[in-house]
Amino acid sequence: TFTRGIHTVTLIPGDGIGPEISTAVMKIFEVAKAPIQWEERNVTAIQGPGGKWMIPPDAKESMDRNKIGLKGPLKTPIAAGHPSMNLLLRKTFDLYANVRPCASIEGYQTPYTDVNLVTIRENTEGEYSGIEHVIVDGVVQSIKLITEQASQRIAEYAFEYAKNNQRASVTAVHKANIMRMSDGLFLRTCREAAEKHKDVKFNEMYLDTVCLNMVQDPSQFDVLVMPNLYGDILSDLCAGLIGGLGVTPSGNIGANGVAIFESVHGTAPDIAGKDMANPTALLLSAVMMLRHMGLHGHAQKIETACFDVIRDKKALTKDLGGNSKCSEFTDAICQRVRELV
Amino acid sequence: TFTRGIHTVTLIPGDGIGPEISTAVMKIFEVAKAPIQWEERNVTAIQGPGGKWMIPPDAKESMDRNKIGLKGPLKTPIAAGHPSMNLLLRKTFDLYANVRPCASIEGYQTPYTDVNLVTIRENTEGEYSGIEHVIVDGVVQSIKLITEQASQRIAEYAFEYAKNNQRASVTAVHKANIMRMSDGLFLRTCREAAEKHKDVKFNEMYLDTVCLNMVQDPSQFDVLVMPNLYGDILSDLCAGLIGGLGVTPSGNIGANGVAIFESVHGTAPDIAGKDMANPTALLLSAVMMLRHMGLHGHAQKIETACFDVIRDKKALTKDLGGNSKCSEFTDAICQRVRELV
Ligand SMILES: CC(C)[C@H](C(=O)O)[C@@H](O)C(=O)O
Ligand SMILES: CC(C)[C@H](C(=O)O)[C@@H](O)C(=O)O
Repeated sequence: TFTRGIHTVTLIPGDGIGPEISTAVMKIFEVAKAPIQWEERNVTAIQGPGGKWMIPPDAKESMDRNKIGLKGPLKTPIAAGHPSMNLLLRKTFDLYANVRPCASIEGYQTPYTDVNLVTIRENTEGEYSGIEHVIVDGVVQSIKLITEQASQRIAEYAFEYAKNNQRASVTAVHKANIMRMSDGLFLRTCREAAEKHKDVKFNEMYLDTVCLNMVQDPSQFDVLVMPNLYGDILSDLCAGLIGGLGVTPSGNIGANGVAIFESVHGTAPDIAGKDMANPTALLLSAVMMLRHMGLHGHAQKIETACFDVIRDKKALTKDLGGNSKCSEFTDAICQRVRELV
Repeated sequence: TFTRGIHTVTLIPGDGIGPEISTAVMKIFEVAKAPIQWEERNVTAIQGPGGKWMIPPDAKESMDRNKIGLKGPLKTPIAAGHPSMNLLLRKTFDLYANVRPCASIEGYQTPYTDVNLVTIRENTEGEYSGIEHVIVDGVVQSIKLITEQASQRIAEYAFEYAKNNQRASVTAVHKANIMRMSDGLFLRTCREAAEKHKDVKFNEMYLDTVCLNMVQDPSQFDVLVMPNLYGDILSDLCAGLIGGLGVTPSGNIGANGVAIFESVHGTAPDIAGKDMANPTALLLSAVMMLRHMGLHGHAQKIETACFDVIRDKKALTKDLGGNSKCSEFTDAICQRVRELV
């Protein structure tokens, strides 16, 4: 349904370097003739009736209508009781799957050359339930909540993702040897999903073992599915293997086609407004978005142009090891897009 | 109090390759004239009155008397309701600190050459509380328990460890942005300990950020202190950076000098009894034990001999990239011990 005509996408430029890297993405999309029209919205949280924090109604309305969003970094609020904006967005739109493809980038050197995996993180519950209590003075409990419904939804998503993206295996990551009931439920649900999708190989591994094996030989991993906190950890670890958050895309997927794609790095206030930021993570997130919308041709062209420019090493931003400005890096990608047939 | 005379240590050889690598360690200790006398004990769990699992009384009595133990790998029990032996030992002797020094080994190649850090893991509570409930069908909660007392104890231990081992900084690893009350309590307690130990630099970092930075540049880390599960993950990740569990020592420290040192790799049933196992992790754990006992001279000599043999590459076991048997590797270390003055 996304393959014909022009599509409106909600753009949340975000804070700090957010506006610059958003401008870069819009420019590249324009040159690539991607059929996307942007609807810019600000999502600084506001307090609704009863003091409840919520995202502004016009941003919510835009997302509800467009279903697809692209989002830059948001600064962490400091007001007491103010929720993380990222968590508020995941909650507001029930974005239950956080998907992060992680593949080595040719020409961008790290200790690893053969990473090609995807972390799929349950994005709504687990250790992120927000339920905590003081039992007695000096004794606190936090509740990790695992439900069959959310586990089924994410397990199913992981297998479907594997199939749709020609991935051979799904590995469930858990600590069911310790959290026998909660991680046990998650694991059982994954096993059940595996039964339904026998064309995809299924593995299960302890989180600690995955971490150890990951730094020794990441090439053994394909699609990984896991509860919320483990995904938070593993997705960052994997980003580290290929060059960090400046080059890794991320997508938050909800029901009925709703999705927000985002760069997961910070707002980098120290370089904001100086034309020094690296737009790669947001650009690759936008490429993920195009694929999600079925716009594979445009996705391929933009991604190729971006990787070509990184491999060429002639117009890299500082964090990528070069001396170029954000706008120069962006222009180089635009130029390459024009060259590609 | 450990520096004069002969000391009796409880030796738990363990299962699978446990007996062979224990024999290797005893042989090297003998050649090095380490003033240790071993008291072997089996710790297969037994069921006490009321079906409660416990370690055999003679093993408990031995540990209570000797205070110091060295332990090989134990097979994971499969009986329903049977606890992990490792957890049972930690609990029985209130071994509240799990300490794992992690340093690059010269001559044993991994993508990293400059790792030199120590993970200090709270070993008694957190996600390992074992408290879980089914709320309604398909909805499970696990309780992460953080207490001020246990947090204080581990934070204090970390700073004392840093001082006693000429370490410059302690980093508290947490997710207090998500688990504001539980990790918040842990973090606050670490900050308080930092106030008391101003001669040690104090940092605090999110777990996900640590994982990312760890694989990008582990040399930036020194002593890391964290709740139970985060320690489980990070200690394995760090082991991966320097070559895996076959070469990393571990110590579990309790109150009043009680401590059990152990190799944390598995029992490797496939090669058990074939003289193929690598005793390095158990040997280095035994070296940690000697240091804990104040026997620094013997510790230094054995450690040097072990690293010399690894660097020489002439008598390595298979997992270390060689063709030698466990006994040949052991003999090479004994030979080197004899050569060292
Ligand atoms: C900003 C923070 C709340 C968030 C998380 O912990 O999930 C971040 O680390 C992420 O991975 O998106
Ligand atoms: C065996 C298992 C219970 C244990 C843990 O999860 O703590 C292990 O992974 C460890 O790190 O000692």
